[in-house]
Amino acid sequence: MFESAEIEHDIDKATFEERLPQLRTDILNAQFELLEARSFPVILVFGGMEGTGVIDSLTNAYTVLDARHVIASAFDKPTQEESERPRMWRYWRELPSRGEMGVYVGAWYSAPLTGRILGKSRAAEFEQELENIKRFESMLAAEGALIVKFWLHISKDEQKKRLGKLVKRARTSWRVEESPWGGSKRYKQVKLAAEHMMKVTGKDSAPWITVNAANRYYRGLTIATTILNAINARLAQTGHEAPVSAPVSIPAINSQTVLTALDLSRQLEKQDYKKQLARHQDRLNQLLSKKKFKKRSLVLVFEGNDAAGKGGAIRRIIQYMDPRRYRVNQFAAPTDEERGHPYLWRFWRRLPRQGDVAIFDRSWYGRVLVERVENFCSEADWRRAYGEINDFESDMSDAGAIVIKFWLTIDKDEQERRFKAREETGYKRYKITDEDWRNREKWDDYASAVCDMVDLTSTSNAPWTLVEANDKYHARVKVLKTICERLEESL
Amino acid sequence: MFESAEIEHDIDKATFEERLPQLRTDILNAQFELLEARSFPVILVFGGMEGTGVIDSLTNAYTVLDARHVIASAFDKPTQEESERPRMWRYWRELPSRGEMGVYVGAWYSAPLTGRILGKSRAAEFEQELENIKRFESMLAAEGALIVKFWLHISKDEQKKRLGKLVKRARTSWRVEESPWGGSKRYKQVKLAAEHMMKVTGKDSAPWITVNAANRYYRGLTIATTILNAINARLAQTGHEAPVSAPVSIPAINSQTVLTALDLSRQLEKQDYKKQLARHQDRLNQLLSKKKFKKRSLVLVFEGNDAAGKGGAIRRIIQYMDPRRYRVNQFAAPTDEERGHPYLWRFWRRLPRQGDVAIFDRSWYGRVLVERVENFCSEADWRRAYGEINDFESDMSDAGAIVIKFWLTIDKDEQERRFKAREETGYKRYKITDEDWRNREKWDDYASAVCDMVDLTSTSNAPWTLVEANDKYHARVKVLKTICERLEESL
Repeated sequence: MFESAEIEHDIDKATFEERLPQLRTDILNAQFELLEARSFPVILVFGGMEGTGVIDSLTNAYTVLDARHVIASAFDKPTQEESERPRMWRYWRELPSRGEMGVYVGAWYSAPLTGRILGKSRAAEFEQELENIKRFESMLAAEGALIVKFWLHISKDEQKKRLGKLVKRARTSWRVEESPWGGSKRYKQVKLAAEHMMKVTGKDSAPWITVNAANRYYRGLTIATTILNAINARLAQTGHEAPVSAPVSIPAINSQTVLTALDLSRQLEKQDYKKQLARHQDRLNQLLSKKKFKKRSLVLVFEGNDAAGKGGAIRRIIQYMDPRRYRVNQFAAPTDEERGHPYLWRFWRRLPRQGDVAIFDRSWYGRVLVERVENFCSEADWRRAYGEINDFESDMSDAGAIVIKFWLTIDKDEQERRFKAREETGYKRYKITDEDWRNREKWDDYASAVCDMVDLTSTSNAPWTLVEANDKYHARVKVLKTICERLEESL
Repeated sequence: MFESAEIEHDIDKATFEERLPQLRTDILNAQFELLEARSFPVILVFGGMEGTGVIDSLTNAYTVLDARHVIASAFDKPTQEESERPRMWRYWRELPSRGEMGVYVGAWYSAPLTGRILGKSRAAEFEQELENIKRFESMLAAEGALIVKFWLHISKDEQKKRLGKLVKRARTSWRVEESPWGGSKRYKQVKLAAEHMMKVTGKDSAPWITVNAANRYYRGLTIATTILNAINARLAQTGHEAPVSAPVSIPAINSQTVLTALDLSRQLEKQDYKKQLARHQDRLNQLLSKKKFKKRSLVLVFEGNDAAGKGGAIRRIIQYMDPRRYRVNQFAAPTDEERGHPYLWRFWRRLPRQGDVAIFDRSWYGRVLVERVENFCSEADWRRAYGEINDFESDMSDAGAIVIKFWLTIDKDEQERRFKAREETGYKRYKITDEDWRNREKWDDYASAVCDMVDLTSTSNAPWTLVEANDKYHARVKVLKTICERLEESL
């Protein structure tokens, strides 16, 4: 869930200062319209890794916005008054009215996160606290609130560097000394707890946006643009449909995404390829015949651009595998029977039993890729799918399955070359249809859908691996190697 | 949550047999229409106390319905096939397609309930399992399924009697011997676990209906009517609004309700009243000055028919109480500021700190009473309110508050007498408005709303007490006595 937030963004001060005035005017206008309409309150929640400057969100809120209609609060330790009442009382006191904005640092997440990170609360308790928060936010959303939540992210190295700097300066050292999570010492715990928090509470009406906070200009523009878009989308709404929730996508501040960050020129020489392929195939078979695997199962998901080489990669995986132990499942448009059931039904039926391998050539991710882009389902449907898919994959891994997901990426030129080559090769001609050519026209929509998919469904128990697939040799070896490594870790 | 299900219903065999043919025809017609439309699947879940004949639901489903389009299953111990896959796999396999019906005994609830009842799972784990179920059912509902869940209830005495009978007969004794919850031995644990299950999973799109199963004819008619109404309401739906969920109300099979079950002729002589009043007032003050109460608080909620005597009862409570320790909160229509916030906001602000007493003369229940009956909010709004209110009251009791709720009942004649008397008494005249007379016209709508409110929000941590209030003396003493008893238990 931190994939996009770990890509470097190099927005410089000049670009920032060029864009800021317009953005500020737009936000003030949106705030004014909001106040005029008095139809809904806006609730902004900020959390993040230590050293990301979460606390600056308050200062920014007061400097960018018209402060008279903003309630901003960082919720320090509860006062005596507060601690004698139900946990949520202090937050209720500070809720904005329709037309106003509430800006909260940490908010109702601080205490549960801290408890979990410091190991004071068990997993089940943490879960319960998060469910309570989910209920609270669902209620706020059902009562009309527009909720946007930001998680500011930095890498571990970046964090170390920053905290070091803060400590050195007298006027900022308090930020580190009062740090409740112990700085970079507990980086991993913070990341895991934050991931779980986002999984449980990031659904539908109150999504989390994870922002790379390493570059302050990028951070500022991303946050401001997200808020602006969310408010304007809601203000633009007429009629009686359900109120529009905040977007799930990170706005495009520059052209950098998890996909463009891939180096598609990676390749492997044929000699090298053959050697490595054979080595990893052997390694895979050894791993699968381990006694420990008898109580586990393996679920491999393949998605990718058309003609990215999913089939070829799958064939290399199963080449020397015991055919009684695996099954390759291919999915086209659902049948009538399948359409009669929830969209996950046809995939549930194909889950492997213990000791087996299930390979999915296209999968449940169709919901948030083709069905989203082609409008085969409503926005509400694909938005809820991210959470449903996370739950589905948690069910699998809770039952012992090792879930590995691959997105095979090629660029537009490479795709064209492959389409044409297929049309010329007799036995491959059936693989290319008019639809494939049509899909190319929506290249950018698919790319955004892929980025959201990776951000919202790459979890520690079922991570995505993005594979540079312009070179088939490189792609196949990377896939096999990734599978072997995950198996080694897990067995 | 078992209030309605503990009222005796005396439907006799003749009445049952008179009504059954029509009901059966109607259900078969509904099933046929469902199949024709193929627009949604129906999922029926049955659970209940041991000895309530839950298993008969399967037999009934097959005999009443056209069995070709019904999937019925009791989910015994998982098979080898099933236990090697995620927990929910077996249920996914048995889901009905659009147009079909699925009838499940125990269903996905059996294992979590049994674990909790036998003390094998902790509270937090049980909660987690229920949250998983909630997510599963939300997903099914979002995918179009109509979900109706029945909990069959009997009193402890009735259960003992029944299990005794079953054991004696050779062909039914297996039912008791295989009982996983140990018969009436764990009656209380079953009731508590079931209450929690209903609180967490009974919301919005998948409500629970609690049915008194003591009288089999009543049970049969109630279940059949509920299913029929739910299917017909959904079939009747046109247009693109959100699909209609199953009703939250128990259908009126006869005129018996928690309200009609009250004996409004109860009264107290003036002499007696004075003595008892003084005694309980003293007792109350002693309880409130206990050291233990310094860490608790008391929340008293008063709702009732207009002119039922709420004010008079409250005055008797505070008569000799330390005025620094209590506050009486009265609520009329919300102010502009209050309307700018979620409906619970104005009540959250009035929660007492430790050692204090907050009395609510009308309360958050306005949402499911006047706002529901007068259409001041949408059906979706008042339906979600039951769960939100349960959460709100759990927050209070988790923080140490003792929550006691009173519904004061008078009959229509008594109300008329009081209205007229008020109009004649100068200083009470302001208490009667045209609106009060208008509300009388909706007497029956209010009565249904009260029954639903009691069924859906009377919980072990915040129970409702229904007070017979035709006689003010009786009512006041019952209120005071109830408060004293709850305080004694809790301190």
